[in-house]
Amino acid sequence: MKLLEERIRTHGKIREGGVLKVDSFLNHQMDVKLFQEMGKEFLRLYQDCGVTKILTIEASGIGIACVAAQFFDCPVIFAKKNKTKNIAGDVYTSKVESFTHGRVYDIIVSKEFLLPQDRVLIIDDFLANGSALQGLIKLVRDAGATLVGAGIAVEKAFQPGGDMIRGMGVRVESLARIKSMSVENGVEFC
Amino acid sequence: MKLLEERIRTHGKIREGGVLKVDSFLNHQMDVKLFQEMGKEFLRLYQDCGVTKILTIEASGIGIACVAAQFFDCPVIFAKKNKTKNIAGDVYTSKVESFTHGRVYDIIVSKEFLLPQDRVLIIDDFLANGSALQGLIKLVRDAGATLVGAGIAVEKAFQPGGDMIRGMGVRVESLARIKSMSVENGVEFC
Repeated sequence: MKLLEERIRTHGKIREGGVLKVDSFLNHQMDVKLFQEMGKEFLRLYQDCGVTKILTIEASGIGIACVAAQFFDCPVIFAKKNKTKNIAGDVYTSKVESFTHGRVYDIIVSKEFLLPQDRVLIIDDFLANGSALQGLIKLVRDAGATLVGAGIAVEKAFQPGGDMIRGMGVRVESLARIKSMSVENGVEFC
Repeated sequence: MKLLEERIRTHGKIREGGVLKVDSFLNHQMDVKLFQEMGKEFLRLYQDCGVTKILTIEASGIGIACVAAQFFDCPVIFAKKNKTKNIAGDVYTSKVESFTHGRVYDIIVSKEFLLPQDRVLIIDDFLANGSALQGLIKLVRDAGATLVGAGIAVEKAFQPGGDMIRGMGVRVESLARIKSMSVENGVEFC
């Protein structure tokens, strides 16, 4: 998606160690007009798939998922990272390793919101090592729901997540796929 | 707002200890059509205030804020609860006590996204003891920005937060204000 690639090129900041900061428009400050265009693109890609629920993970996937869900005319569920008093009862759970935070955490979704008859599109802001996406896929499969695919804003295609998830037979559509990036040479897209 | 009150009445679940579960439509599964109506109502209330930024806090405020921001035609910033590698450099920070999680945590916003010339509307899903809102207000004031007010989905008016924040001279508009609630008698609105 040219619009997102262009924004990454002009407003993304590359840091040492493979870190791409897109916090001026994607995951701290959020450009909801850009999210609308991304939502339309996700709809174009998945419009014939009968999506009944969009599943994302807190926190930075939520904004993109909610704006996109308006085009799909379906609700969003976000997987929570910590079990709180407000989620009682039965939940589906899986483990996610966060390289940003340097730890492993549980993610959960209430069983009542993910049903066997659901056709689920997963939306998230980043795909790098694939741990979060793998965890979300497990939630969908544990529920016996149908996984339609994943819609990702930014895929770091030089990291193994995308290949791993596609190798599992899951459809993954990323709006911007980064082939390589460096402080010296900037971002190159696939 | 009748639509939200009605949804709370029909789909909210009251638990012992003053817990209101609205996770089927507001803060776990999210009804984005309802969020659109809430966004329109926030716009009706604050449309003459020249809002340039909507500020919310992760995680459950983000969806409502992003959908509402489309009507205000402005970006959203969400305060983060944990300092990660991805936020380097200067941040505004304040402390928030979570009664749900039973702990105190820091919230942060990058200084580059909250500017003295900004006119900020804070949006969040719940107002009860007021700790999160107070923390967000401090971020706005530390930035030297103008606080237009707060737009809240559900205010537990029987808890002290709303009175406390209004007593600070801050405009607070809550779409549903709960006067009292109990497992036996259900929810009564103000």
